[in-house]
Amino acid sequence: MSEHRLDLERRQRLGLVEAIWGEHKSAEQIIAIARDFQRAGELALVTRVGEAKAAAIGQAIPELIHHSQARCLTLGELPQPSKPAVGLLCGGSSDLPVLAEAELALRCHGIGSQRFADVGVAGLHRLLNVIPELSELELLIACAGMEGALPTVLAGLVPQPIIGVPVSVGYGVSAGGQAALSGMLASCAPGLMVVNIDNGYGAAMAALRVLRGRG
Amino acid sequence: MSEHRLDLERRQRLGLVEAIWGEHKSAEQIIAIARDFQRAGELALVTRVGEAKAAAIGQAIPELIHHSQARCLTLGELPQPSKPAVGLLCGGSSDLPVLAEAELALRCHGIGSQRFADVGVAGLHRLLNVIPELSELELLIACAGMEGALPTVLAGLVPQPIIGVPVSVGYGVSAGGQAALSGMLASCAPGLMVVNIDNGYGAAMAALRVLRGRG
Amino acid sequence: MSEHRLDLERRQRLGLVEAIWGEHKSAEQIIAIARDFQRAGELALVTRVGEAKAAAIGQAIPELIHHSQARCLTLGELPQPSKPAVGLLCGGSSDLPVLAEAELALRCHGIGSQRFADVGVAGLHRLLNVIPELSELELLIACAGMEGALPTVLAGLVPQPIIGVPVSVGYGVSAGGQAALSGMLASCAPGLMVVNIDNGYGAAMAALRVLRGRG
Amino acid sequence: MSEHRLDLERRQRLGLVEAIWGEHKSAEQIIAIARDFQRAGELALVTRVGEAKAAAIGQAIPELIHHSQARCLTLGELPQPSKPAVGLLCGGSSDLPVLAEAELALRCHGIGSQRFADVGVAGLHRLLNVIPELSELELLIACAGMEGALPTVLAGLVPQPIIGVPVSVGYGVSAGGQAALSGMLASCAPGLMVVNIDNGYGAAMAALRVLRGRG
Amino acid sequence: MSEHRLDLERRQRLGLVEAIWGEHKSAEQIIAIARDFQRAGELALVTRVGEAKAAAIGQAIPELIHHSQARCLTLGELPQPSKPAVGLLCGGSSDLPVLAEAELALRCHGIGSQRFADVGVAGLHRLLNVIPELSELELLIACAGMEGALPTVLAGLVPQPIIGVPVSVGYGVSAGGQAALSGMLASCAPGLMVVNIDNGYGAAMAALRVLRGRG
Amino acid sequence: MSEHRLDLERRQRLGLVEAIWGEHKSAEQIIAIARDFQRAGELALVTRVGEAKAAAIGQAIPELIHHSQARCLTLGELPQPSKPAVGLLCGGSSDLPVLAEAELALRCHGIGSQRFADVGVAGLHRLLNVIPELSELELLIACAGMEGALPTVLAGLVPQPIIGVPVSVGYGVSAGGQAALSGMLASCAPGLMVVNIDNGYGAAMAALRVLRGRG
Amino acid sequence: MSEHRLDLERRQRLGLVEAIWGEHKSAEQIIAIARDFQRAGELALVTRVGEAKAAAIGQAIPELIHHSQARCLTLGELPQPSKPAVGLLCGGSSDLPVLAEAELALRCHGIGSQRFADVGVAGLHRLLNVIPELSELELLIACAGMEGALPTVLAGLVPQPIIGVPVSVGYGVSAGGQAALSGMLASCAPGLMVVNIDNGYGAAMAALRVLRGRG
Amino acid sequence: MSEHRLDLERRQRLGLVEAIWGEHKSAEQIIAIARDFQRAGELALVTRVGEAKAAAIGQAIPELIHHSQARCLTLGELPQPSKPAVGLLCGGSSDLPVLAEAELALRCHGIGSQRFADVGVAGLHRLLNVIPELSELELLIACAGMEGALPTVLAGLVPQPIIGVPVSVGYGVSAGGQAALSGMLASCAPGLMVVNIDNGYGAAMAALRVLRGRG
Repeated sequence: MSEHRLDLERRQRLGLVEAIWGEHKSAEQIIAIARDFQRAGELALVTRVGEAKAAAIGQAIPELIHHSQARCLTLGELPQPSKPAVGLLCGGSSDLPVLAEAELALRCHGIGSQRFADVGVAGLHRLLNVIPELSELELLIACAGMEGALPTVLAGLVPQPIIGVPVSVGYGVSAGGQAALSGMLASCAPGLMVVNIDNGYGAAMAALRVLRGRG
Repeated sequence: MSEHRLDLERRQRLGLVEAIWGEHKSAEQIIAIARDFQRAGELALVTRVGEAKAAAIGQAIPELIHHSQARCLTLGELPQPSKPAVGLLCGGSSDLPVLAEAELALRCHGIGSQRFADVGVAGLHRLLNVIPELSELELLIACAGMEGALPTVLAGLVPQPIIGVPVSVGYGVSAGGQAALSGMLASCAPGLMVVNIDNGYGAAMAALRVLRGRG
Repeated sequence: MSEHRLDLERRQRLGLVEAIWGEHKSAEQIIAIARDFQRAGELALVTRVGEAKAAAIGQAIPELIHHSQARCLTLGELPQPSKPAVGLLCGGSSDLPVLAEAELALRCHGIGSQRFADVGVAGLHRLLNVIPELSELELLIACAGMEGALPTVLAGLVPQPIIGVPVSVGYGVSAGGQAALSGMLASCAPGLMVVNIDNGYGAAMAALRVLRGRG
Repeated sequence: MSEHRLDLERRQRLGLVEAIWGEHKSAEQIIAIARDFQRAGELALVTRVGEAKAAAIGQAIPELIHHSQARCLTLGELPQPSKPAVGLLCGGSSDLPVLAEAELALRCHGIGSQRFADVGVAGLHRLLNVIPELSELELLIACAGMEGALPTVLAGLVPQPIIGVPVSVGYGVSAGGQAALSGMLASCAPGLMVVNIDNGYGAAMAALRVLRGRG
Repeated sequence: MSEHRLDLERRQRLGLVEAIWGEHKSAEQIIAIARDFQRAGELALVTRVGEAKAAAIGQAIPELIHHSQARCLTLGELPQPSKPAVGLLCGGSSDLPVLAEAELALRCHGIGSQRFADVGVAGLHRLLNVIPELSELELLIACAGMEGALPTVLAGLVPQPIIGVPVSVGYGVSAGGQAALSGMLASCAPGLMVVNIDNGYGAAMAALRVLRGRG
Repeated sequence: MSEHRLDLERRQRLGLVEAIWGEHKSAEQIIAIARDFQRAGELALVTRVGEAKAAAIGQAIPELIHHSQARCLTLGELPQPSKPAVGLLCGGSSDLPVLAEAELALRCHGIGSQRFADVGVAGLHRLLNVIPELSELELLIACAGMEGALPTVLAGLVPQPIIGVPVSVGYGVSAGGQAALSGMLASCAPGLMVVNIDNGYGAAMAALRVLRGRG
Repeated sequence: MSEHRLDLERRQRLGLVEAIWGEHKSAEQIIAIARDFQRAGELALVTRVGEAKAAAIGQAIPELIHHSQARCLTLGELPQPSKPAVGLLCGGSSDLPVLAEAELALRCHGIGSQRFADVGVAGLHRLLNVIPELSELELLIACAGMEGALPTVLAGLVPQPIIGVPVSVGYGVSAGGQAALSGMLASCAPGLMVVNIDNGYGAAMAALRVLRGRG
Repeated sequence: MSEHRLDLERRQRLGLVEAIWGEHKSAEQIIAIARDFQRAGELALVTRVGEAKAAAIGQAIPELIHHSQARCLTLGELPQPSKPAVGLLCGGSSDLPVLAEAELALRCHGIGSQRFADVGVAGLHRLLNVIPELSELELLIACAGMEGALPTVLAGLVPQPIIGVPVSVGYGVSAGGQAALSGMLASCAPGLMVVNIDNGYGAAMAALRVLRGRG
């Protein structure tokens, strides 16, 4: 996510619905920006908005939809999703907010996706079971906290582009996602790509850049 | 690069010429592995091999070619390169070994590329000048040391997939490439993908995964 | 900001209105120090004071003004600002508190400034558009979180003194401002100067030292 | 390995042949300590001794044997090894010195072991192929550099005690073994135990403590 | 602890009651998972659940027992504990939550244990006094914050397997448990094994792997 | 220092003689770049060149001058220095290479400077003795390793602009200059500006930006 | 402070009133320990107790005194203080809690001390003014946050033993006290001794060890 | 050790023979400084001088004595040592250079000391055996690498002042001495004082400050 306002010139150049990063913005600031988007007839996506702030914003702009698991707001009609092109993988429920953020950001661009939400490497047979389904998809986004080994194992099994998203869930050395990040960057599997910790939106934008060139 | 031996099953599954990581291997170990590849009629790529070790290996297997700037060895005929699909960007001559490793790894898979080797952000007009040429390419690999801002600026200007490769060149806080790596991961530009420091080979393999699905 | 009480000898030697760092002080401590300044007829500037603490202090000393965005208090009349001498740049609304602290600290010394609050490097055309205006100013303070590339790009474009202020806004590797700080110190652009993370006041004092010697 | 001299009281209490850590010791110091062991009729194991230092020591005490891959010296007769009780796993040739140090330290206590030296997680089918053989062993020591995912995957597949040894082989974020260490400690697999980076000897001593109580 | 749901296949393969890591899960998520276990007739262990969340869950599933010191929930009948096989050591009351988590996880598998909760190295005579009692046990788990020296001293005194658990209690350089973790990994005592900071559950699972093979 | 080649457009825009960073360049690469400068009639400054590389380059271009303490090469006539405008301070002989690099870079732009090379804070009376002399200068560059307190003390005593340069000299926690860097950024003295560790050239360029606007 | 209960044997051996570290203990735990001390007729000192917890404990044991600035409780009569033997220095009000903890811990052992609470290095004349008074004292404890330069400057001016206590007050690179700690350890002044961040109690105990041997 | 030249004023004020830190100085620089001391009739101590540099300096000033284990040079007559006042403890031969540097620095001031060079905590009985001898000494300096637990255990056993010196010997997490440093600062034992890694000279100067005030 980038710090943001409506920049139509850039939106056109890159072809992206840039997210408004809501974490450090007040409800008032978000309302003002969202109205700019509304006036311009552009779809707005605001990330990192918790329940309380969403409720406050919703009072001012009732058309806003709060996507609770993804911790995001959208304003404007979402395009119809394509048939699933992206696989979204993670090991368990603690990774779901990051996965859901990626899912919604893809959805804002009309890209359909499919969840595989319980395929951590500690239960390898579950991951091996879904390999055939994964092979139908064009790109995989693998979200993982703790030691972050999921994208490494995946990259040794399938040939598609794989984007690893470290998740900040953990304790001790894995708190904050640094261990997962290092593990993905240090991966012994060839051709794994990585984005910042918890950056589900960024993974989706990277996926979008990759998918646009494809048949 | 991964730790390695010849694994035909995996090579076929992933469609990659996996590199033999030469840094911690003795000349004897590399010779043995290279001969395995030769016997199997497979192209071999050995990375991180300096002049002295290359010479020692070359005595045993004269057909090996040492690519000096890329610090790599190849054994076997390289496929003809396609018309350039990948742009390779960096800011200056200190980044060239990493860029050249990526270039050669692409070449081993028949992917043509084009160098833009003097487009650091401190001389922004040079980067802006090549934007039209960049727009002809399908994917960009941007290698940068120091503060690593090149892929960030690039990702705000062009819509293609961009893979940032932090380079370990620097001093003080930039020594070892950590500042460049953090800068790329923390980027305010949407959809930038990152690989490990100095991992030119990894960037090429990621590019290969991306390009295979395209027209 | 330094730990502080009223020290007239030092204030005269350095020519600075030293700020009282309010973050770890109780309302009672701040009230006591502010009254010392008031008795001495000196302008007081208290930094890092949130809404609640400001209200408590305001009950005791109603003449205190709370500058909400800058999270600062002032007591005493601010001097008239000069025509703008300093440009204050940032990429978005999350950087504004740091920018506003610098602005107010300059204002306490009679230095006028001009804001450029939406010129992040991910939207390069906006930054390029303001270059002519920037060239009218004597010194630039660039506040940036995330990867902190703004002052680097700026220092390649204009010849004035540039002070980079890393901002602690971010998540994952950019949380706390360390990535922005490293990026500014590691900058490939020549002659960039840096202060501590979020240190808007310090940047203003550095600017004051620089400007005093000028025509 | 600990800093060391001959301490018969402790050797008896713990039941361990404590290694002499050779890395920071001169050839003269090692010769003196080794002769103390020889006089006492005790088996001596000296770790971290490279070729040159081994040769110098060998001139003074020709009975010393240099175990080249393990970078160790032994003086005195090694006990006969038991039938293999410990599995020694790693991903490739760069991990072998650490694996060999563990193997030799076990051998000094009469414990037999079996190598599985090419079972990295990037080639998962090779690891899956050896699971039946692994199930015959009482304890597994898994040495891994890079992202260090091998013991995590292993601990999800087999029920024995598993000791992870991070290996310092790598580059960028994996240089020095810190990424592998964090990955093993942060592992999502239950009941993995870890020792210091490159500490093959320590893993063997831990194994010895575990095995002694078994039938 | 791992991210989790009920996986009977894996439970059988490893022979472990895998914990549900409760820290980042909502009361609703925990209730749903616990009911799955209940339906399957399997014992459930949920870790890292504070008083408030436990109360909320207890309203929905009154049969759940909250183990307050261990910050855990169990659902289902705990097996009878064996005669004590594991010694649980720590230096003081701040380490007790971690020790109690290990104790309960052992208990869930029918392993009895004995507490030695006041044997920090700063009062060495207390540790020396319990050595005879410790020698009756098969394995020792030593929890320590601050400098984490307890397992090091212990490993020089007794021959059993010892698992060190760094505790996150501390301030300054010991805050978060990193100093204790480094101290245990760097230990000069031979054969010490370590798990992640505060990972009492993991230490218990490691102990279970070790004990299963013993007479 | 930036990665570099001759860029006349930028040189004119910024008014700086940009240094060629020699550390990672071969003698051949430096010779080629220097000849470009020579042909263009521009003064060349190459930094971080040790004795051996300087000798090799000097064979090819005898007009090059090696400034041994500054570890720099220059090619072309240096302008006459102005009367001293910059004070260069450090605590002892180990900081001299960094100080000399700054001195030479200033000299390349015609700026005169004055050395105060033995004014470390552990011998405070020496620093206090030179305060009157310092007050004659327009700007101070303070180079310091170890704890890096010199610029902090200085900034409490004099009102000029002060640029702190951390020096990588030290051992233990001060090795590599990180402690000095943190100390300067964390300084309790108002208005201190900092550049990267060992970046004497960068401090000089910053000074140049500051001085250009002055009477 | 150490983790703690009443250990009369150790108290006698070391001659110290060991503090009960209150930070991670519940009011109930502290009440129980304090009553043990009371029954034994021993003076109790509990550190790191905030207002709310102190009030709760005070309800149960009204004789307890809460020392608010020091964030400590004492139970039992404090001995009469000697004439001041220790100087307690700091730079400002944010360091006072740490200084006050040291002061109270000394007081518990009958050692008198004298405060110098406004002598930061940014206002050097104030520090120089108190040098004559300092020379009357036997030992100095210097508490400092930010860059932590106070003990370094002090150690160049006076010959007594000096104990530096880094304070966790700060922001950006000085947050948490790490910069101050590194600065004190890296000090260029000879013979400075350091304790953990915020460890006022530890500094007092070190002082006690030093003072006991003196006339 | 501090950066240095002869400063008689300071030497008199502090009463210390300040060391010349030889590590980053050339033989020529050391010769020049040593001659200054010789001319002034002052004892010179140069630290961190290896065999080769010592030989080169010895050619110019044959009266210089090289203390090989301490890696130091002295020029001038050493005073007669007092009866041992300081105990110097370490765990093994790798710590001896640091211990010897402290020993020599004490000797330069006429302070006698006694070595206990084999008392690591992994062999606790050896440490316990020397407690009676230690009780005769006025102050203890404990040098330790690896986990650095020696001074912690010591501080729980004896009441004297104890100065911990972390030693940079180790591998993995203990490489460079950071684990030992953190362990000593985080110590649960009351009143331990710490100096920088490998700073034997600093420990001796701290001891000197402490001892001067004693009967």
